[in-house]
Amino acid sequence: MQGILAPVLTPFDRDLNPDAARFVRFCWSLLDDGCSALAPFGTTSEANSLSLDEREGLLDAVLDAGISPQRLVPGTGCSALPDTARLTRKAARAGCAGVLMLPPFYYKNVSAEGLYRGFAQAIDRAAEPRLRVYLYHIPQVSQVPIPLGVIARLLEAYPGVVVGIKDSSGDFANTRAMLRAFPGFEVFVGSEKFLLANLREGGAGCITATANVNAAAIARAFRERTEERQREIDRVRERFDKLPLIAALKEAVALRTGDDSWRAVRPPLVELSAEERRLLKASESP
Amino acid sequence: MQGILAPVLTPFDRDLNPDAARFVRFCWSLLDDGCSALAPFGTTSEANSLSLDEREGLLDAVLDAGISPQRLVPGTGCSALPDTARLTRKAARAGCAGVLMLPPFYYKNVSAEGLYRGFAQAIDRAAEPRLRVYLYHIPQVSQVPIPLGVIARLLEAYPGVVVGIKDSSGDFANTRAMLRAFPGFEVFVGSEKFLLANLREGGAGCITATANVNAAAIARAFRERTEERQREIDRVRERFDKLPLIAALKEAVALRTGDDSWRAVRPPLVELSAEERRLLKASESP
Repeated sequence: MQGILAPVLTPFDRDLNPDAARFVRFCWSLLDDGCSALAPFGTTSEANSLSLDEREGLLDAVLDAGISPQRLVPGTGCSALPDTARLTRKAARAGCAGVLMLPPFYYKNVSAEGLYRGFAQAIDRAAEPRLRVYLYHIPQVSQVPIPLGVIARLLEAYPGVVVGIKDSSGDFANTRAMLRAFPGFEVFVGSEKFLLANLREGGAGCITATANVNAAAIARAFRERTEERQREIDRVRERFDKLPLIAALKEAVALRTGDDSWRAVRPPLVELSAEERRLLKASESP
Repeated sequence: MQGILAPVLTPFDRDLNPDAARFVRFCWSLLDDGCSALAPFGTTSEANSLSLDEREGLLDAVLDAGISPQRLVPGTGCSALPDTARLTRKAARAGCAGVLMLPPFYYKNVSAEGLYRGFAQAIDRAAEPRLRVYLYHIPQVSQVPIPLGVIARLLEAYPGVVVGIKDSSGDFANTRAMLRAFPGFEVFVGSEKFLLANLREGGAGCITATANVNAAAIARAFRERTEERQREIDRVRERFDKLPLIAALKEAVALRTGDDSWRAVRPPLVELSAEERRLLKASESP
């Protein structure tokens, strides 16, 4: 797998319930815009603010709508092992290209052994030979980093199953260290800021929040691999990095589609303030 | 509500599934030992390593066994709002004395408004007039502190519903600040180290991990309120604070009951190493 993946924003209705029809339409539009695949149920998707039934319902809706499971890498990592195993099994059985797996994220400062077991037992319990796992390293949010030693052990125990990682740490030295330590490991950066750097080191692409609003340009930067294209997508990213990211992305989709309901986020997130909305509009390129 | 509450350890079987029969027996033994009530499904209980169905199954087992719901304050705070609402509604409908509610804990550095909405919407969605909420402040684990301003707003919006807090921060200045800011608010400390200090300031008691192994002495310290009793329970606590706490408590229960299966923990936790087990045994008072 390579290219640009969008961690798809989750639309809510007036009662803050997921809106499956709008979600499906949005998934199609992201693929039309040039995303190579979709990573629904990531951090940007507010996945950990959804119940398991809600996540499964949205996945079913996307599959029923005819989106190929080979273009889906749903997030399945929960804090509870049976939940991770359940979502992972469902995605693998549906034929999804892979799953993006957070470590169990409630306890902090856990041992390497405990972290290894968290992933290993989720894979064992999912018990599905077609499973392909992308680890999800986002220590600034999960507060549970995935060290290189744990990755090495997983690659040894689950060859062909643990196949890649999304590195959202924002620490490119870590991304580079993984690329050098694990040849063939599919390393995606978590922001397009590192897209060109990652591709030059042999990385696979990026899974980035901003693909929800700028997929075409990011996909073009992936294809052309030039400094100029990188600068173009950096400028758009910077607009969003100054604001609460998820709320700002939903605001941008609301503005583009004329559909105010896109602004809805679940607690503990809040929609942009009036001042933040002004800032976002003011930063738009002419 | 006042006194000593145990965040009940969750026993697992060989396949790491919760063992309801052993759980019920253990709950009875803690009440026999002098706990005024039980707070199952806390951090010590590995609650966020359990699925919702598993938590509900264990709660049903305890209720079916005849333990009065008035002696139960189950943990119900999840990262997803519908999950928190579902567990909270179930506990309140069963007549539980209260629930212990973590804030949504996946996103970090959330706004006071987002945190307020997380609690408020969980209460609104639970829609159960008998509900009594104890907030659960454990920033070193959840990484989502509950500031005084949010508590003040909840007390104003939900008088008689939001009735207390468990302060597991280990920062007694914070405990004292809450006691002084909110007269009548039932403040429990999260470790018996602060029991006497909390009672002297008008606090309600403590909800402490170590009540799983030392309930009788802690309950006595609560009744007698002397420096001597406080020192006695401090000595036991110190033995456990040197070790991974949850695994050490399960080891102690395994030793006392002669039932090795008590050692089982779910990932990302791991059972004590041989060396840690030796340390725990060596520290036992003669």
